[in-house]
Parts: sequence; structure tokens; C-alpha cells
Amino acid sequence: MDRHREISSTVVRWGVVFLTGVGVALAPRPEGIARESWHLLAIFLATIAGLIAQPMPGGAMVLLGVLALAVTGTMPVGEALAGYADPIVWLVLAAFFFARGMIKTGLGRRIAFLFIRAVGRHSLGLGYALAATDMVLAMIIPSNGARCGGILFPIARSLAEAYDSRPGDSARRLGAFLMVLVYQCEVIVCAMFLTGQASNPLIAKFAEQVAGISLSYARWAVGAIVPGVLSFALIPVLVYRLFPPEQRRTPEAATFAEVELKRLGPMSRQEKVMLLVFLVVAALWMTMSWHGIHYAVIALLGIALLLLGGVLSWEDIISERGAWDVFLWYGGLVRMGGALGETDLTRRFAEVAAAVTAGWSWWGALLVLALIYFYAHYGFASITAHVTAMYIPFLVVVLAAGAPAPLAVHALAYLSNVMAGLTHYGTTPAPIYFGAGYVAQTVWWRLGVIASWVNLAIWLGIGAVWWKALGWW
Amino acid sequence: MDRHREISSTVVRWGVVFLTGVGVALAPRPEGIARESWHLLAIFLATIAGLIAQPMPGGAMVLLGVLALAVTGTMPVGEALAGYADPIVWLVLAAFFFARGMIKTGLGRRIAFLFIRAVGRHSLGLGYALAATDMVLAMIIPSNGARCGGILFPIARSLAEAYDSRPGDSARRLGAFLMVLVYQCEVIVCAMFLTGQASNPLIAKFAEQVAGISLSYARWAVGAIVPGVLSFALIPVLVYRLFPPEQRRTPEAATFAEVELKRLGPMSRQEKVMLLVFLVVAALWMTMSWHGIHYAVIALLGIALLLLGGVLSWEDIISERGAWDVFLWYGGLVRMGGALGETDLTRRFAEVAAAVTAGWSWWGALLVLALIYFYAHYGFASITAHVTAMYIPFLVVVLAAGAPAPLAVHALAYLSNVMAGLTHYGTTPAPIYFGAGYVAQTVWWRLGVIASWVNLAIWLGIGAVWWKALGWW
Repeated sequence: MDRHREISSTVVRWGVVFLTGVGVALAPRPEGIARESWHLLAIFLATIAGLIAQPMPGGAMVLLGVLALAVTGTMPVGEALAGYADPIVWLVLAAFFFARGMIKTGLGRRIAFLFIRAVGRHSLGLGYALAATDMVLAMIIPSNGARCGGILFPIARSLAEAYDSRPGDSARRLGAFLMVLVYQCEVIVCAMFLTGQASNPLIAKFAEQVAGISLSYARWAVGAIVPGVLSFALIPVLVYRLFPPEQRRTPEAATFAEVELKRLGPMSRQEKVMLLVFLVVAALWMTMSWHGIHYAVIALLGIALLLLGGVLSWEDIISERGAWDVFLWYGGLVRMGGALGETDLTRRFAEVAAAVTAGWSWWGALLVLALIYFYAHYGFASITAHVTAMYIPFLVVVLAAGAPAPLAVHALAYLSNVMAGLTHYGTTPAPIYFGAGYVAQTVWWRLGVIASWVNLAIWLGIGAVWWKALGWW
Repeated sequence: MDRHREISSTVVRWGVVFLTGVGVALAPRPEGIARESWHLLAIFLATIAGLIAQPMPGGAMVLLGVLALAVTGTMPVGEALAGYADPIVWLVLAAFFFARGMIKTGLGRRIAFLFIRAVGRHSLGLGYALAATDMVLAMIIPSNGARCGGILFPIARSLAEAYDSRPGDSARRLGAFLMVLVYQCEVIVCAMFLTGQASNPLIAKFAEQVAGISLSYARWAVGAIVPGVLSFALIPVLVYRLFPPEQRRTPEAATFAEVELKRLGPMSRQEKVMLLVFLVVAALWMTMSWHGIHYAVIALLGIALLLLGGVLSWEDIISERGAWDVFLWYGGLVRMGGALGETDLTRRFAEVAAAVTAGWSWWGALLVLALIYFYAHYGFASITAHVTAMYIPFLVVVLAAGAPAPLAVHALAYLSNVMAGLTHYGTTPAPIYFGAGYVAQTVWWRLGVIASWVNLAIWLGIGAVWWKALGWW
């Protein structure tokens, strides 16, 4: 029976993918749109449908999409594969190696324990300590899975277990609170840096393509700092009020951190090299407008230093499964999304959108569309899939309605991250923190939607004021 | 003391790399050569020096080379990374997944055991059986490491051990003979197919670039079939004469194969899918001139079928370390070699070479340069490194001397493979077969050089006659 259900579920999933692709391909092609553009759209939408329905893992779906591009002659194979040489894909690939170095040398744990020792004597402080670690790491590690899943999660769980808080009766003692708090802060951290999360560089690419605005590392961080710090300060308090831990004072956490720091001992040579690479890479990214060295070159330089400094071995590089998984699906999606943005479809869509939105006030259009964009994330299991599918068309419509370009670009960019707080599958770390089993799904969703109201008020309200002050609109 | 020696050895290795790079970069740049071309040459030669001296694993050296291209502004980073989107790199990547499928389903072993059961009752037949398996697999698996190391080597060793032949006193009983025979046949098999070995598609790319000759899968195989079959038939007999096993009759090998085939049982569904993919991919490659589908598309199609047919899981793809190792170094080298071929350096070098070789007979030039090219392989630990460094310049000189292009292209292409038989480090499987410990180095080299004379006579002598008959010169 179960086997039967599983098979029919797989058939339904594949059905969704094929119907999407074939449906679009056979639908009447609008006048003035080239056949290749239309096929590209069909394959792209089928791939996105595949990422949502998941008849196979995401990476396999994307690889099938790339194959479809080449087999149907929509692109020469060299073009279809071009995403794998795209510098932003390599930037994300590099993230996994930085994260590996952080884990291997223990530097990530050391940073977390230093924060915990400093402010971890109270459960709220403990939450801030973990989230602050995430924020520091987000300055150079644009893989939230590696950062928040690989480095922070084991620490958060150990802390909960140190207070005998486990899934079940003791969940509310500490663990449930920490899981919700760290995850809700994580999506804010993602929004704060160009390197907060893998699809931020992709957003930057789209923004450049559609609106000619260059979202540099520095510009992204400047726009995010006021709303980001506010959200980061308020959301933990909100969680503490709505979903308090039974254990309010946590002196043992500080002691635990103390013990762990003793156990780590003084920094090893490799750990120092890791710290140096961290500082060099972050500094070079921050100062790109002065020296003009490309992100990806800086990232490769970081990897080279880790290899030369003996922090990573070649074996670490080639056996980093997660890196190659992301490389495969991200490279394909970046290419498809990019190619779609270059077709006549975007221009045509902008014309139609302009006709529809004629007479709307731009701020009304921006507000309504931003909310639709945001809550549409209930339907996505990955920020990248959502951004690839929706960022360009929504930006185009908002711009067509007359919204100032920098405002629209930044608002949609930041919301693309914060929206992931809605569900337990919104972005990579979500299933990890939810899956630990401390929190029921209804609770997770209820807290997610309440946090989303606060975040929207901060990012669209105070954020808009801040961007006005910066002269961006 | 040893630690001391190790450090100074590392310093010497790095010294070779840096002196090569800096030396060339600072050397007076010939008139008419752009600064970028010259820097490209310096970085390329330093990378090749790194592949030979190996202060770090090859992949790391290539990644440093790619970084150097970008940091020095020799190329924009997107161009420096372009090799990772090159279809031939993906063809080689696909090879590892085909090999994984062959291993996982047991089809590779089944093919070997079928051959052994048929002709394995005598030690010479046993050798042919193993080599024939290699030849069949080479039709679609352009990774000789995966094929000859991953699939064949465990069988060869089991057979030797079945006759209690182990490194040491009993080595000559059977094991030593099998190791030498299989390896010497392996380099011939490499030469027989465009997919025989990873750098063959690279050679095809260079041949197209320099001489405008398109070395398709079919054309490569047609040119190789007469000398290839001859070498393949004679070399085992030669090894049998010069280095006979003590155990001449091996009825137990056939029994062993019979038992193993029973144990494998009837073909599983996955194994059938693997066989089907094998046949489809080989057939599509063979018939490219009819349908025009690109190699890499066919390779991707094969992977897609393996994924859809449940032969490979996504986990198999992302955790295939060897695949990602080769991807990283091959992608970088392909790009550097290709870019170098496009610069003004090649044209200039051809002019100089033409002036030097003026008055030589073309066949004398071809013969002498082919021999130098061949025996230079004593200095290389990889066919790819050798080909990348020397194929283009040697081809240019031979063409400048007036040799017919198809003859020169094919002769150098085939020799690029056969030359790997000289040493115990000539190509990936060499250290595996040698490293099994059955054969002393002096013996390995002596047999290698004798086999090289026979191979040269066959490929340059009878080969030339065959290519004349084909109308290629």
C-alpha cells in the first residue's frame, strides 16, 4: 500500500514537471518572442516545478534542465554549461571550503563559545550569542547551510542537552526556544550581507541586469545595517515573550563555554591562518570599490591561502559533497535565470506590465507586490528557486509602475531572505532546526508568521526611511 | 633529519614552480607578442612545472594557476574559469559517473568474467581477457583510472592471489606477468578511442585549433583500428616471451570466473539499464556525423538515464571524489591550453619553426620530433600535462616542416597515449599496477622501453601505410 502510494506520488511529481514544460512549450507563443526564448522559458519553468515537486533531488532536476536546453537546441551545450564557469557560482563553491576550514580548525566553535561566555548566562543572551556567531560567519560564508547547519546547530543542540532539554516533554525547557530563535535570526543575518546566503549574489546579478544597479558587498551591507540591526535586536525579544524557555537563567552554558574554550586551548597555527584568511577576505570584499578585484578572485585567493597554509588538504576540497551538490544545481540555475533575463521576454513582460500598472501609484504597487512576493515563499523550499523564478518579473513590474529603482531593488533583495522565516522548509537550515524535533509544526508556522509582520514593518517601514536618508529614492 | 629533508624538498619543488613562472615573465618578450599572451605563457609553464614537481597535488596547482590568471589580470575571472563550462571537461566528468555505474551494478565485473571464462584457461588468454574488458569499457569511459584502476585492477589481483602469487617470492608465478601485460595493453587501448583517455578530447580540440582537422569519435577509431589491433595482439605475446609467468595453464581462473558469474546471478534491472546506457552512448558517439549531437550532450544524456533508471543516486554523483578532482585540474588546464593556442604566440612560434625547419624533409622532421615527443614522456607523470605542454608546439613545427596535416595530427595523437607505457608513473593506472608490488622498477622500465620499440614500429610504420590507404596523406 505504502509502496503503491509512493509510486503514484512519484508519478504525480513527474507529471507536474512535464505538464509545466510541455504546457508552456505548446502554448501559443506571444508575437515578437523568439522560439528559443519560449523554449528556454518552458524548460526553466519545468525545472523550477521540479525543484518544488522534487521527483528527484534538486541537483538532478537542474542537470536534467541543462540537458534539456542542449538536447532541444535551445542553446549550444557550451552555453548551457556556462553557469559552471560563472564567478558567482565559484563564490558560493568557495563558501563551502571556508566553512570546512572553520569547522576543521575549530575557529567557528571558538567564536561561538567566546560569545556564549560573554553573554550566555541568561537564555536570551545565549540566543543572541549563537545568532551573533552566525552574523560574524555570514561576513564571508555565503552558505547558510554550512554556517548555521554545520557550525551552529551542533552547539545549539549540545547546549539544550546540557540542560536535559530534549524533544518531547523537556523540549520547552530550552531547546525549543533556541531552535526558533536561532532560525529566526538566521534569516535576518542572511539579509544583512551580500554573502549572507547563496542567492544574494544572484539577486545582485539580476539587479544589475534589469535595473543597472550594482549591489556591491559594501552597498548591500550599508542598506541593511539599520533595519538589520533592529530586526536582529527585536526578534529574539519577541520570541522570548511569545515562546519563553522554562529555563531563564543559564549559568551552566557560560561554564560549558568556559570548559570548551579550555579544551580548545590556545589557537593552533592552522586556526590562526583561518582567522587571517577570514579577515583578509572580508576586508577585500568590503573595499572592492577601491581595488576592483572581483569577488570570485578574492574567494579563490582565500581557498589558495587555506591550501597553502595547510588548513585544507586537497582531499578536503574534492570530498566536500555539499559543495558539489550546490555547484551542480546552482550553476545550472544561474545560467537559466541569467539567460532568461537576457531574452526579449523580459522586455516584452515589462511592456505588458507597464500597460497593466498604468495609473497605479508606484508605492501601492511596490507594497502589494512585495507582500505577494514575500508570502509566495510558502510555496518554495529554497530561496534560490524563489528568487530565480520571481525576482526579475516582480522587479520589472514594480519598476514599470514607476517605483524608484534603488528602493525596489533593495527592498525585494532583503525580503528575499527574511521571507524564509515563514516555514520549516524555507531555506537550507530550516529542516535542520525544525527537524531536531523540539518544535511542533503549527507552533513553528505561527511564530514564523508573527515574526514576518515585525520584519516587514521594520524592513519596509524603517528601511524605507533609512534608504531615503541615504538618498536612494 | 627526514623532516628536514622533506621541508627542503618542498622548498625546492616550489622553487622550480616560481623560477619557471617568474623567469618567463621577466624574460625579454619577443616583438609582436602581447603582454597578456606572455603572462599567460609564464603562468601556464609554471603550472606545468607544478604538475611535474608536485609541491602540492595537481588539482591544487591548477587552481593556483587559474587564480594567477585572474589576479594578474591576464584574463577576467570569468574567462579564467571558462574551462569548467567546456563540454569536453564535462565529457570526462561524465566518465567517472559511467564508471561508478559499471562498478555499482557489477556490469564491469561481469564483462571481465565472461572474457575470462571464454579464454582464461591459459595465462596468456587470461591477460587478453582482462585487456579486452578494458577495450570494451574504453568505448565510453574516458577515464583510464576509473576503468583500469577501479574495475580491472581488483580482478587482476584476485586472479593472481587465487594462484597464491603475491609480491615477493611468488610474484613471478602469475601476478607480475598480469600487471605488466594489462598495463602495456591499457596504453594501447587508450590510443584506440577518442574516449580511451581523458586527454584525447583535448588533443582533438588542439588538432581542430591548429590544423582545422576534426578528430571525431569515428575518425579517431578508424585511424587506430589497424595499428591498434596489431599492437593489442602482439604486445601480450611479447610480454609472455620476455617475462613469462611460471604458471602457464590457469584452469582455475576460468573456474573462478564461472563461480563469480554464478554469484552475480542474472542481470539486475539496474545492470540492464547500465548496459542499455552503454550501448546508447557508444552508438550515439559512433554516429555523430549523422545526427550532429555533441559528445557532451550524449554524455549528459547517459548520466540522466543512469539517474532516472535508478542506477546512480544523486549521492553517488556528489560524493564521487575522483570526478571532482579531475574536474578541477582538467577544467583549468583545458582553458589554459586552449587560450594559449588562440594567442599570437602560436602563429609566431610557427613562423620561427618554419624558418628553422626550412630545408628539412618533412618526414625526417616528423620522425625525429615524434621520437622526441614520445620519449619526453619519461619526464611527465600525466598524459594530460604532457599533451597540454607539447602537443601544439610539436604539431606546429611538424606542419611548418611541410608534413601532411592529417598524418601529423593522427601520429602525434596516438603516440600521446602509447608513450605512457614507458614508466611506472606515465598515466593514472601506472602507479596502481606498479604499486601492487609485483614488479621491480628496473624490470618495469626495461619491458616498457622494449614494448615502446614495437609500438613505435607498428604505429609509425604500419600506421602510416594504413593512413595512406585511407587517403589521409
